[in-house]
Amino acid sequence: MPRLKAPQRREQLIAVATKQFAKYGYDATTTDTIAKSAGITEPILYRHFGSKQELFIAITRAVSQQTLRHWHELISPIDDPAQQLREIARQFPSHLKEMGDAYRVIHNALTTSRDRKVLAVLREHYHQMEAFFTGVIETGIKRKVFRPIQPKTVSWSLISTGLGFALVSLNLSPFETFDVEDAIEFVLAGLKA
Amino acid sequence: MPRLKAPQRREQLIAVATKQFAKYGYDATTTDTIAKSAGITEPILYRHFGSKQELFIAITRAVSQQTLRHWHELISPIDDPAQQLREIARQFPSHLKEMGDAYRVIHNALTTSRDRKVLAVLREHYHQMEAFFTGVIETGIKRKVFRPIQPKTVSWSLISTGLGFALVSLNLSPFETFDVEDAIEFVLAGLKA
Repeated sequence: MPRLKAPQRREQLIAVATKQFAKYGYDATTTDTIAKSAGITEPILYRHFGSKQELFIAITRAVSQQTLRHWHELISPIDDPAQQLREIARQFPSHLKEMGDAYRVIHNALTTSRDRKVLAVLREHYHQMEAFFTGVIETGIKRKVFRPIQPKTVSWSLISTGLGFALVSLNLSPFETFDVEDAIEFVLAGLKA
Repeated sequence: MPRLKAPQRREQLIAVATKQFAKYGYDATTTDTIAKSAGITEPILYRHFGSKQELFIAITRAVSQQTLRHWHELISPIDDPAQQLREIARQFPSHLKEMGDAYRVIHNALTTSRDRKVLAVLREHYHQMEAFFTGVIETGIKRKVFRPIQPKTVSWSLISTGLGFALVSLNLSPFETFDVEDAIEFVLAGLKA
């Protein structure tokens, strides 16, 4: 394998670690296995990530970033906040497919990890999701498209819907769950001004 | 420890396994550790549960049963379906506290297990939750307290709300999430006839 430059090596290691954590679980995966799958030695891995924990943190931050960038791209050409939420819902199943392994890693850590730094980065992730939706809801309320309501309640209703849909479709398939677009229509019905 | 009769022994083993799975994870827990913590030998454990998997299945079925029994008890003296959902929400944080370990075990399996039987019993669990809420919603629609809407969508909105609240409060605490009673008021607003 050709020598990669530092940023490419970091990206490659994040991608390899994501696959391994998703397949075998965070606890069962060692930095040795990750290094081997990336075609490098463990000491070289440690030049980029000081520990398995740091790899996890990098994966979670990458997921937060990519998800937020994707959502910002989706909503920026759309003016109406209700339409913005509809568009995010419409694209959610394919976004989830694309990011499936990374979301698996996050959900797995959420339900199993007791590591302080891991939990801190997970809080950061959900705070960012909350802030994003709060922004959309507040705009809708200001413009009187949405009724005045605690934005936090609605943000978490949206996050929970996404979480519920993701957990079931990533893990229990085949399982006839709900249609995420119908679920958003239902949220929008509760928001009507 | 005095000799227990078979049903008491089963209950004891379910309680011990729930604690161990919740603390160390399903994969990291062995039937040997469970037997030791219960004060018996592994061969005696195997008289009651053929495998670790069977213990997990028994835990999940016990959670489904206890949750449904608790909800049925809560709603039976209440006539109005909206009030029934409010009461379930009001009691949810304490229900979760009481059943925290068992729910941890289920969520952990949901995000990590690839075992066919484990996944089958999880599907069973969520189908039962869905059927319960569908019953409440359909009654509300029939009585024109709720508008006509796909009950599945609403059931999953309620399940996702509970799942989101449980995952965050069981794992990310301290984390200022949403108020589950506010969340149900929001769902009820979307249901108004």
